[in-house]
Amino acid sequence: MIPTPTIPQILQVDKPLQMVSGATLPRYELIYETYGELNADASNAILICHALSGDHHVAGVDADGKPGWWDGYIGPGKPIDTDQFFVVCSNNLGGCRGSTGPTSINPDNGRIYGPDFPIVTCRDWVNSQNELRQHLGIEQWAALVGGSMGGMQVLQWAIDYPEKVRHAVVIAAAPKLSAQNIAFNEVARRAIMSDPEFHNGRFIEAGTTPKTGLALARMLGHLTYLSDDMMGNKFGRELREGKLQYNYEVEFQVESYLRYQGEKFATKQNFDANTYLLMTKALDYFDPAAEYEHDLSAALAKATAKFLVVSFTSDWRFSPQRSHEIVKALLDNDADVSYAEVTSEHGHDAFLLPNAHYEGVFRAYMARVAAELPQGDSK
Amino acid sequence: MIPTPTIPQILQVDKPLQMVSGATLPRYELIYETYGELNADASNAILICHALSGDHHVAGVDADGKPGWWDGYIGPGKPIDTDQFFVVCSNNLGGCRGSTGPTSINPDNGRIYGPDFPIVTCRDWVNSQNELRQHLGIEQWAALVGGSMGGMQVLQWAIDYPEKVRHAVVIAAAPKLSAQNIAFNEVARRAIMSDPEFHNGRFIEAGTTPKTGLALARMLGHLTYLSDDMMGNKFGRELREGKLQYNYEVEFQVESYLRYQGEKFATKQNFDANTYLLMTKALDYFDPAAEYEHDLSAALAKATAKFLVVSFTSDWRFSPQRSHEIVKALLDNDADVSYAEVTSEHGHDAFLLPNAHYEGVFRAYMARVAAELPQGDSK
Repeated sequence: MIPTPTIPQILQVDKPLQMVSGATLPRYELIYETYGELNADASNAILICHALSGDHHVAGVDADGKPGWWDGYIGPGKPIDTDQFFVVCSNNLGGCRGSTGPTSINPDNGRIYGPDFPIVTCRDWVNSQNELRQHLGIEQWAALVGGSMGGMQVLQWAIDYPEKVRHAVVIAAAPKLSAQNIAFNEVARRAIMSDPEFHNGRFIEAGTTPKTGLALARMLGHLTYLSDDMMGNKFGRELREGKLQYNYEVEFQVESYLRYQGEKFATKQNFDANTYLLMTKALDYFDPAAEYEHDLSAALAKATAKFLVVSFTSDWRFSPQRSHEIVKALLDNDADVSYAEVTSEHGHDAFLLPNAHYEGVFRAYMARVAAELPQGDSK
Repeated sequence: MIPTPTIPQILQVDKPLQMVSGATLPRYELIYETYGELNADASNAILICHALSGDHHVAGVDADGKPGWWDGYIGPGKPIDTDQFFVVCSNNLGGCRGSTGPTSINPDNGRIYGPDFPIVTCRDWVNSQNELRQHLGIEQWAALVGGSMGGMQVLQWAIDYPEKVRHAVVIAAAPKLSAQNIAFNEVARRAIMSDPEFHNGRFIEAGTTPKTGLALARMLGHLTYLSDDMMGNKFGRELREGKLQYNYEVEFQVESYLRYQGEKFATKQNFDANTYLLMTKALDYFDPAAEYEHDLSAALAKATAKFLVVSFTSDWRFSPQRSHEIVKALLDNDADVSYAEVTSEHGHDAFLLPNAHYEGVFRAYMARVAAELPQGDSK
């Protein structure tokens, strides 16, 4: 049976958004998809928050038949069971997949925003998603779920709108970026911004894109998503041509793989370079404890959600240690928190991949969330 | 007292060098410095092998008063005591500090070599340094000492010229690069080669340099030399302007530091981009076990030197695990091997920095090397 494509919907918000940076966005659109059905008392809604290069197409298939980026975990009978839950996913503000962002037209002057799109923070995303919540008639999310940058959004939701979040699932995230994390982002941004095709961010108007810089940024990003062990097992020192060439063409399989990932991202997937810059900046800025004298426990004191925190042993971008910080801060507040440290060799990428322990933990937790729904009301 | 500058010397080798790649270098020069005095039976000579961006100026001061890159460990009364040893350090072939390399003139056509300089491997370095050994009248090195890429050269020396090496000191090295190591090198090379100022490697003739790409490569390199903990302790999330600016200027101190390191390397230090490419390729290619059916123990079976192997706990570029591989392969051969795993938060960079444990181990080992010298012969 050919699955029915999920058609994205667009919410037009005509209310200005006061942003953390001080800028005001006069109006904006959020593109989103939904899966499953909202129950009678609107108590079975789950919001999925995407990671850096993600989008609203998280599950099912789109009009081109392409599966969502987390389709393995969301759908009928899957850990996030769309027979029980109404699942929502929106493209973040500042994105390039349909929500208002740098590729949109600036209503102030009719030009493409490009570099003029204001710096977005995690809190701005949460505030804009809160408009979507109201639009959908949802008083409280049954759960918020996100990995990596998405996990940070979940934390921000739990802090900023405690009464709107029943469960918070924070996967492969961190309470703030380390200096090393920021440094990797900075090298990626330098690669993009120093590409002559960047044109100070006005590359669309210049009829081009900073493909080279964006591909470099993606290669570097990819490197931090994979573990050394996994790369060793997958590629080792395998040669592309079977023997050494002694030149600057691709010699090792791992080089071929990385170049392919970089080029695919920058050309075939046509990711917007200004969006990439914005997303990395939002990551750098994320630090909810900063407003509480750098006390994460104090920052999380307002959160009333129940939490599931998940980390992966080989993740060196946001290591289990970073999840421990979150769990400890929650325990300081006697929060209801479950934690799983999942053994995986797949590094940061593990949060998107099949894994029996991960799936089991996730499925069990979501069953608990489902069990709290009004009896017979979930269909 | 103003120290006497060390004047570099140049060895002109008129014998062609058959290179591993299949290329032949018709003639070449090696620039080198020496410290201390060679004793009567030439038994007290130590060759220092430099790392990726190093050069022959390892100790003392040069004509500009600049101290050598390892001056803390080499000199009178220092762990490598120049009152006892005759210390030699040469700039690697393919370098850009005076030895023949991409910035030299190609005698075949009178043009700057640039990208035509043949790919160099660790074995080529060892073979060229062996000419220097003969020129200096040294039958056997009392010790070979090197960190990182230099440590790999030491291993290659011990394998290729076992009778010429009495002691081998291999610091913060690996028996071969991992897929992740290669991947980082590849991103750095892409950054350089995709800089429009690279001009297919003919940038000198084009009157320019690929500063942007080289700076990016160096930023990335630096990131892999430092540990997450050290960056956290040194920079944390300290802001450059005291408060967030919400723009793409430097926000965090760590960004400022990395940009400075990148720019200094590409402009003030004027490192040659083709040399950077060559050095990273030589690292990728280093794999002495490959000729022995990937059996490192078999590769090291010929080595007769006594070994000191040193690693640093926070080094994630070449972690202690990589040194364990070397030590285990040596022990398989019942070699005389000492090993120290030094606690340091400084990552890969630790091999260049002061550290009481490291210094103590090093000093004790070199005292052992000195004790083997003919009595009263060392001055």
